[in-house]
Amino acid sequence: MSSSFGKELKISLFGESHGTAIGCVIDGLPPKIKLDLKLIEKRMLQRKPGQSKMTTPRAETDQFEILSGIFEGKTTGGPLCIQIRNADRQSDDYEELKKVFRPGHADYVGYVKSMGAYDPRGGGHFSARLTAPLVFAGAIAEQILAEKGIKIVGHIKSIGQVNGKSLSEFAHFDEELADLDNQIYNIFPEELEAMLAEVDEARIAGDSVGASVEVSVYGLPVGLGSPFFDTVEGKLAHALFAIPAVKGVEFGDGFTFAHKRGSEVIDAFVLDHQGNVQTNANHNGGINGGITNGMPLLFKCGFKPTASISMTQETLNFNTKEMTNLKVKGRHDPCVAMRAVPIVKAMAAIVLLDLLIENLGVGINA
Amino acid sequence: MSSSFGKELKISLFGESHGTAIGCVIDGLPPKIKLDLKLIEKRMLQRKPGQSKMTTPRAETDQFEILSGIFEGKTTGGPLCIQIRNADRQSDDYEELKKVFRPGHADYVGYVKSMGAYDPRGGGHFSARLTAPLVFAGAIAEQILAEKGIKIVGHIKSIGQVNGKSLSEFAHFDEELADLDNQIYNIFPEELEAMLAEVDEARIAGDSVGASVEVSVYGLPVGLGSPFFDTVEGKLAHALFAIPAVKGVEFGDGFTFAHKRGSEVIDAFVLDHQGNVQTNANHNGGINGGITNGMPLLFKCGFKPTASISMTQETLNFNTKEMTNLKVKGRHDPCVAMRAVPIVKAMAAIVLLDLLIENLGVGINA
Amino acid sequence: MSSSFGKELKISLFGESHGTAIGCVIDGLPPKIKLDLKLIEKRMLQRKPGQSKMTTPRAETDQFEILSGIFEGKTTGGPLCIQIRNADRQSDDYEELKKVFRPGHADYVGYVKSMGAYDPRGGGHFSARLTAPLVFAGAIAEQILAEKGIKIVGHIKSIGQVNGKSLSEFAHFDEELADLDNQIYNIFPEELEAMLAEVDEARIAGDSVGASVEVSVYGLPVGLGSPFFDTVEGKLAHALFAIPAVKGVEFGDGFTFAHKRGSEVIDAFVLDHQGNVQTNANHNGGINGGITNGMPLLFKCGFKPTASISMTQETLNFNTKEMTNLKVKGRHDPCVAMRAVPIVKAMAAIVLLDLLIENLGVGINA
Amino acid sequence: MSSSFGKELKISLFGESHGTAIGCVIDGLPPKIKLDLKLIEKRMLQRKPGQSKMTTPRAETDQFEILSGIFEGKTTGGPLCIQIRNADRQSDDYEELKKVFRPGHADYVGYVKSMGAYDPRGGGHFSARLTAPLVFAGAIAEQILAEKGIKIVGHIKSIGQVNGKSLSEFAHFDEELADLDNQIYNIFPEELEAMLAEVDEARIAGDSVGASVEVSVYGLPVGLGSPFFDTVEGKLAHALFAIPAVKGVEFGDGFTFAHKRGSEVIDAFVLDHQGNVQTNANHNGGINGGITNGMPLLFKCGFKPTASISMTQETLNFNTKEMTNLKVKGRHDPCVAMRAVPIVKAMAAIVLLDLLIENLGVGINA
Repeated sequence: MSSSFGKELKISLFGESHGTAIGCVIDGLPPKIKLDLKLIEKRMLQRKPGQSKMTTPRAETDQFEILSGIFEGKTTGGPLCIQIRNADRQSDDYEELKKVFRPGHADYVGYVKSMGAYDPRGGGHFSARLTAPLVFAGAIAEQILAEKGIKIVGHIKSIGQVNGKSLSEFAHFDEELADLDNQIYNIFPEELEAMLAEVDEARIAGDSVGASVEVSVYGLPVGLGSPFFDTVEGKLAHALFAIPAVKGVEFGDGFTFAHKRGSEVIDAFVLDHQGNVQTNANHNGGINGGITNGMPLLFKCGFKPTASISMTQETLNFNTKEMTNLKVKGRHDPCVAMRAVPIVKAMAAIVLLDLLIENLGVGINA
Repeated sequence: MSSSFGKELKISLFGESHGTAIGCVIDGLPPKIKLDLKLIEKRMLQRKPGQSKMTTPRAETDQFEILSGIFEGKTTGGPLCIQIRNADRQSDDYEELKKVFRPGHADYVGYVKSMGAYDPRGGGHFSARLTAPLVFAGAIAEQILAEKGIKIVGHIKSIGQVNGKSLSEFAHFDEELADLDNQIYNIFPEELEAMLAEVDEARIAGDSVGASVEVSVYGLPVGLGSPFFDTVEGKLAHALFAIPAVKGVEFGDGFTFAHKRGSEVIDAFVLDHQGNVQTNANHNGGINGGITNGMPLLFKCGFKPTASISMTQETLNFNTKEMTNLKVKGRHDPCVAMRAVPIVKAMAAIVLLDLLIENLGVGINA
Repeated sequence: MSSSFGKELKISLFGESHGTAIGCVIDGLPPKIKLDLKLIEKRMLQRKPGQSKMTTPRAETDQFEILSGIFEGKTTGGPLCIQIRNADRQSDDYEELKKVFRPGHADYVGYVKSMGAYDPRGGGHFSARLTAPLVFAGAIAEQILAEKGIKIVGHIKSIGQVNGKSLSEFAHFDEELADLDNQIYNIFPEELEAMLAEVDEARIAGDSVGASVEVSVYGLPVGLGSPFFDTVEGKLAHALFAIPAVKGVEFGDGFTFAHKRGSEVIDAFVLDHQGNVQTNANHNGGINGGITNGMPLLFKCGFKPTASISMTQETLNFNTKEMTNLKVKGRHDPCVAMRAVPIVKAMAAIVLLDLLIENLGVGINA
Repeated sequence: MSSSFGKELKISLFGESHGTAIGCVIDGLPPKIKLDLKLIEKRMLQRKPGQSKMTTPRAETDQFEILSGIFEGKTTGGPLCIQIRNADRQSDDYEELKKVFRPGHADYVGYVKSMGAYDPRGGGHFSARLTAPLVFAGAIAEQILAEKGIKIVGHIKSIGQVNGKSLSEFAHFDEELADLDNQIYNIFPEELEAMLAEVDEARIAGDSVGASVEVSVYGLPVGLGSPFFDTVEGKLAHALFAIPAVKGVEFGDGFTFAHKRGSEVIDAFVLDHQGNVQTNANHNGGINGGITNGMPLLFKCGFKPTASISMTQETLNFNTKEMTNLKVKGRHDPCVAMRAVPIVKAMAAIVLLDLLIENLGVGINA
């Protein structure tokens, strides 16, 4: 089992939902970056549960402590480790969890993978709580990218039957996107009510609901990525599928392409009024041949409805070998996407900074 | 730029469309495997262009030569290198290609990435021709997996507006799937006509058409993959997006999940009649928490319509800085998916064998 | 800059000498290992400074806290993170340290590498204190190897002009080696006095003295390693040179080979009395062609005398650009090798476990 | 088994001594490098056997063919693959080789590692012949480094009892070193006779003799490498131990340090007459804390006498389980170091270019 990622910028993630602490080591950060703690806190707050009835009421504190890698407020270029202590450790009857694995969760595979020796409390190392340190790491990457003129925007594109507008409408980062970025739910105002209604309806029914998240990245240079294997799409997807509940990733027109004719989706080269190369459309989502082409990078992730629902489910008792009625205890998000935007953005930032360092070298900040 | 992939089983891909040769080194193969050359040839034939008017008439010979790694017909455990000489090297006026980059292709990004020093003939290293050695490598991986009881099936799920049936209908590998596997186009017979009509229509119009490919893998053990970063989904997607024209990857219900309620997509655990653990549905496509759960692995790739169309396109002449009419010369596939199934399967086989060796060790075949 | 290592078993090291905490994440541990805390404490005590006048009087507490990866006393297979808080943070006048870099230390290269943004207190991330978490990780690896019948022995082979006996005299792990393993200084009793006299002499003179450490590993299976690049020698050396002050690594007869004839150093194959394959000598130190051959693995590391001496040194003031007299403050080991044996063994254990998992798979403990 | 190496610049090596071809893929080369074929040929000639009675008379042709990665004489940035066909394939009675493994060779471990399925002819993939493509790759790296002002010099430091002068005498690359670089044997003229006499004596006796090779690299920037794990010493040693017969690697004063006092080996910082930072000695061989410090990088490799000697050796017949007299057939180098200098230099060049690209980014040549 491996919980490490990255080539130039390496993340080593650790922790269990109800263990002592969670956190990560970020290895390969450029030196001399004065950390923007406000941005980090903003992103962690956007991910944090318990903000409202739309998210799980579990009161994680998410107070991080930086253990290394910072001196006088700046990165040293050495590994930066953070820990987040697990304050809210509720004692589950976890012996039960080893008999009746929750459908759609990782309990069963975790049990097999660890030959029975896993921590079943709250999903153990498989918990979505592990995304908190990733959001921390992502915020640092986001800051460094921003200082290079690269801006990452994300939002909830759809919840259940409600489908919002696309970031493909925005050729550039503008005020409306800046506003969106400040919202706790990352939903365009005109879509907020309808989307929340979907979540509320699921919540009241003791159910959950799926969603999709869309991200656009502005200001990327031409030339990040490789044609074979380490495509920008492949590296991003590799990271994005590590987000719990993500089951689909698409770039630009994505699966819609499958139903189109080539003549309908041409991204012809043109010059903009400043004489820069552009394409007159962006069906390819900013990537050709696996490599950034200078247009906004655009992708979507599809999230499944969380498998933790309050409704009773009939499933196997692995001990008695008989079917049993399971009512998943605990506090659940009716829609994981309500907190997913900062996570998706964090993953994008981490991967894109890795690619940028590959192109520019470790002296990226020189 | 990197064209290497894999952890235990490493592929190093090389070559340009019109260079001396293409090929790959496959490093980390288990020793003592008697190569199934018939399977290799069958897969390479399924990928090969020029089979009919449905694919590009370019007469690639695809005659591979094994340079190393085999002794007395068996793998030695040392690196296996193959080369495929480029017999059909048509002399393009390639200076032109550096002035008018084809929209939707990698010419422009390839030019920038290489600081102008790339081989523009037929896309150079960015050519889909590079998938031939991948199909070779995939066939070996497929064979090794098959010897472990793991069977990979793939087919064209949709072309343009025609959507065929799903492999999710098949809980086990059966005769119908075996037949499908032998078809050059990997289309179920009842869908063949309608799908070919879509391609033909596009071809006649000088256009191209998108498609999707679906793969199901039977017989995987529980416990391949990791929860964070090296999820089965993430590793597969990483490889799949390297296939030219793939712009979306989804697992199980994929993006459909986004519109569903949790209660609609429960994969409850049950015992089958032999007393083995199963789930009573497979919405998650055989993966929970990034790890195989013993159910069939199911995924889909969305292919864009190839950007090479015969219709005239207006695009930038980078030399004159003026718009020009481009008519892409050469021989094109009206639908890349017609040859994509063996490629998608090859990528899946390579990734899954890598994961299997990680679990079982290099003595996998002992 | 990177502080990560390993393929199957990955170590991500963090911390600075006078920062908040040091520690590491150990990723890829086999599950279900009941940690031998006594062994861990024994090894950390052997590395710990302040044991006597022979080592630095700095009172590091080295109290580690396990943050993750353990449940009910056993490894879960998830990443295990430890932190060691830095209790003894003495406030140096560290502005001075950025003007007069200590000769033979990493201050200057650390300054350049971090573009001035490094933590100069006690060497920052470059401190030998970072070896404490490595010893922790190594003790776990040592335990797992021991459970597979693989036993690692190390000792101080020489200090200054005093050269002790070689582990090549021991064909098997025996009682004498077990005794040696329990000694805080890891010196054979008959050599202890002379070696300590060398250290004492250097200490009294305000000087330091070099040394060498030898390690022998018993019980390794035939077949670990690869011929090209990932040789056992190469992987071990890669890790060993990360130990501060190591400047040479040799296997078996090592540099002595350079002065020998082939006929003098034949390791002929023979059967032992149990009918097992052996070689009748072990000039090659248990490795042929980069791969373990079943004989004891034998290697030596040469340590330079620590650059921290109490004698006055004339060196450059980078601020004034003039030469200045430097008297390195603080508490120094007159001979780093006094604490190096557990570190060298730890590195060996980590690398060998990595190779063993590669051969046996993640289910090594099944 | 793995035969791949490198992070930014990746080498994938393939082939067997008597197979179809040997070669390698070099992945990650900077684009737009006009290959210096003369340098490549010079280096390959220096490695080539059969130059005189001092080396094996085997007539390898070493004619390489570039299969990819070059367009109009320049690197494209895509993978460069070369093959060298095995012209001189002598048919050994290789069934015999599986019964009586040659002492000191990799036959036995190769047999076990491959579960019996290896190519025993001439050592198969374990053959020193595999260093030919490495010298090719190294020559390209050497050229790129030279264009950045980095110059690699190597020579035979000792053979048997004859010990020559050290490159530590040369603070800068000068005419004498340029002359040395052009010699087929890379021995200083005043030492040539005595060294050749050692080889000749061994040859006449049907024996072999050990040697050491020393390398110095001039012009490296300050700041390559990392303190933990990816030290310059560790990365170089990792590669160097892959050279057949290398059993020791040391940097600067190396093992000599072990017998010294700290006050004897101070590298104090000074300014040279141009105002650049230097150290007034170079005991550390250009590296502090794992990172280049701007002084010449200096290291030595110890080579064992080749295990292939013409004298009769008594060893085990694995078939009969009885001891037998073995007389190794074939053509042997009495001293492998006669051809080793270009190989050692190649390894150094490959590793150093990898580190340089890490620092400067893939646009190193921009």
